[in-house]
Amino acid sequence: MRDTLFENVTAVTMDGDTPVRPDSYVLVSGGRIASVTDSPPPDFSGERIDGRGKVLLPGLVNCHTHIPMTVLRGYADDYDLQTWLTKYIFPVEAKLDGRCVRAGALLGIAEALASGTTSFTDMYYFCDDILAAVEESGIKANVSRGTSLFSEDFSFESHPGCVEMRRLHREWDGRDGGRIRIEASIHAEYTSNPKLWAAVAEYAAENGLGMHVHLSETRKEHEDCIAKYGASPAAILDRYGVWGTRAVAAHCVRVTGDDMDLLAARGVNVAHNPVSNLKLASGIAPVPALLARGINVALGTDSVASNNSHDLFEEIKTAALIHKGASGDPRAVSALDALRLATFNGARAQGRADECGRMVPGMDADLILLDFDRPHLVPCHNVVSNLVYSARGSDVVLTMVRGRILYRDGAFTTIDLPRVRRELEDYVLPTLFG
Amino acid sequence: MRDTLFENVTAVTMDGDTPVRPDSYVLVSGGRIASVTDSPPPDFSGERIDGRGKVLLPGLVNCHTHIPMTVLRGYADDYDLQTWLTKYIFPVEAKLDGRCVRAGALLGIAEALASGTTSFTDMYYFCDDILAAVEESGIKANVSRGTSLFSEDFSFESHPGCVEMRRLHREWDGRDGGRIRIEASIHAEYTSNPKLWAAVAEYAAENGLGMHVHLSETRKEHEDCIAKYGASPAAILDRYGVWGTRAVAAHCVRVTGDDMDLLAARGVNVAHNPVSNLKLASGIAPVPALLARGINVALGTDSVASNNSHDLFEEIKTAALIHKGASGDPRAVSALDALRLATFNGARAQGRADECGRMVPGMDADLILLDFDRPHLVPCHNVVSNLVYSARGSDVVLTMVRGRILYRDGAFTTIDLPRVRRELEDYVLPTLFG
Repeated sequence: MRDTLFENVTAVTMDGDTPVRPDSYVLVSGGRIASVTDSPPPDFSGERIDGRGKVLLPGLVNCHTHIPMTVLRGYADDYDLQTWLTKYIFPVEAKLDGRCVRAGALLGIAEALASGTTSFTDMYYFCDDILAAVEESGIKANVSRGTSLFSEDFSFESHPGCVEMRRLHREWDGRDGGRIRIEASIHAEYTSNPKLWAAVAEYAAENGLGMHVHLSETRKEHEDCIAKYGASPAAILDRYGVWGTRAVAAHCVRVTGDDMDLLAARGVNVAHNPVSNLKLASGIAPVPALLARGINVALGTDSVASNNSHDLFEEIKTAALIHKGASGDPRAVSALDALRLATFNGARAQGRADECGRMVPGMDADLILLDFDRPHLVPCHNVVSNLVYSARGSDVVLTMVRGRILYRDGAFTTIDLPRVRRELEDYVLPTLFG
Repeated sequence: MRDTLFENVTAVTMDGDTPVRPDSYVLVSGGRIASVTDSPPPDFSGERIDGRGKVLLPGLVNCHTHIPMTVLRGYADDYDLQTWLTKYIFPVEAKLDGRCVRAGALLGIAEALASGTTSFTDMYYFCDDILAAVEESGIKANVSRGTSLFSEDFSFESHPGCVEMRRLHREWDGRDGGRIRIEASIHAEYTSNPKLWAAVAEYAAENGLGMHVHLSETRKEHEDCIAKYGASPAAILDRYGVWGTRAVAAHCVRVTGDDMDLLAARGVNVAHNPVSNLKLASGIAPVPALLARGINVALGTDSVASNNSHDLFEEIKTAALIHKGASGDPRAVSALDALRLATFNGARAQGRADECGRMVPGMDADLILLDFDRPHLVPCHNVVSNLVYSARGSDVVLTMVRGRILYRDGAFTTIDLPRVRRELEDYVLPTLFG
């Protein structure tokens, strides 16, 4: 792979409190950031990329999605949750197979790359097919098989989700120098019981796997748990050791003050999904209170079935807006805070804080380049403000993971999009809806 | 002007309850929609535009903005309202002149056209310069000089805002066959008093002018008015006849049930600005309750200083999301409802319901074409869902007003954007911030 030099670029490093460096030179060598300087490095012979009028930013991290569900974009909107799940989502998901999942994952990854995402955290099933799409595309991902259990009859050795988790762990974890990671996952408190929690938590802790859980997404889920166990989802999962490893709790819309104290004490990461939470009418997560407790909050899109987009720039803007409106304080979740959620905090939540999320020499060159020479980004009094409040995913003109360009000016270097779309038309849609 | 034929296009007519017509032919002749048919019209000899993989929609209507403030994009964010206004916005506005306003208006119009807006309603000052930009660009606009009054000393004949309103009315109203309209405007209850209200209301009623007012945007404004007059802003302005003509009340975040009953009885249109209301922490307007009363609700971006975008697709999605989240009902403000706010309802609020806002033969050809052949719009189970939840302003590839193409594939046919940007760099920014 040739070295790359971004010349005369506005670098937003996300490192420290003054993360904007105009007229910078960012040298990428061997897949890593070699230097960020004010003048050109000597004797450079690789590819030069003109950064004038452009902004270079660490790639965005999507910490909660179900990427194969991209095939359901716009299929069922504006229904109450029960109708949405039982009449639309579950019946279609029952028809899914690995081939559908692989096509959906590739389509979702294409959308993610084109809008500036360089790493994502996924929970779904048919994970070999998701992982094949990740491997082929060059994106980073933490992938988990969501597990559930609706009976008291449980054996860790034979439970299909646990069997798949262990196999994925053996076969895929750490692939391509850690670009691909396997995590453990308990889908949610309300879709399983203590036997599963204890077993999955123990496996994750013993093997150093991350953990991915839906937590207190809806009022009903939160209150039903208290009625059943006399404890909130956060508290009851804690009793079974679920927070004993690096964990991502998705949503946390209904967490209480006590729950937040507990999550802070256990170092649990929260994946905030503001668009999905609004669209499904779940509510607004208490992000300012989470941040005030020092909890690491990252962003997720959730699946496009409840969004309907993988564009994290929408999520960044919504996160910066919604907590101002909800709290009455226009200083809540500043533009820089919101940008941190999607970059450094995302990398931390993935266990990749030393690897990406900031533009610092030695880190992986997971970088995105935005064209700021467009009317909706003019004038540019403040680069961070324009990134958060005015930019869209479509302003991304180049997406690079570990120094490898995966997307540039509308074209994908690793994904054969026309082939994916033919597969969608010829196989996936007939299989699911034919 | 040559006739235009959109061929094999998915036409979203916004007419009736099933507004999507796939594989349509939309003929534009003499600046108007001539036909919407399932097969090609015979003997067509004008320009053919291939609509395969594309969606044709009535142009969007932005019912509340202050378009010259585009020059302040990203200048001051995340401050409390008082600091924002007094330390940042007012001091810069004091340095504005007509030349700055004209450049800002052209930049804002360029952004609006590029993201699918074909008509807007503006309240500001230096209106001749705004109107010159409107005239030059080919966009439609309803423009008003915002008036205020902070003393008891008032003469309609000499008050600068009233003098300008009357002159604008004489010189500009109805220009270019009604493309340009002048409205009356009272900036807000809290920035004036009954003398101004009565006089401006009387002038508007006598001359058939629309009215544009900020109403109950913030809790403080609403409560201060009740403390001062013993009546809400909606009620006190009603006593002085302000709702006696077609009126647009912008924001309405804090209106009560009684206020809404009054606005419904008077036929007042509401311009809903969800992004601005969140960003300035004003709150969430009671849109489902307004709609339930039969009030015509349209959308606005407000100025980019509090948004920071003129992309109405963001406003559409935010309107579809936020009321679900606020009410707990995922059926609140459906995708089709949200799209109506930005099209037909906008045209109604502008007094242009018989002229645009729907794709119906005889109406002006104010049309936008979106490229749906992009990964984030695939698959397309539901065109309206994809328009509302997945599309962005950047998916607009063509914007036409009265049959004239003003924007196509990144290029403007009436606005010399490089010249506007030079003017911004050479004159506007040094004048305001130098």
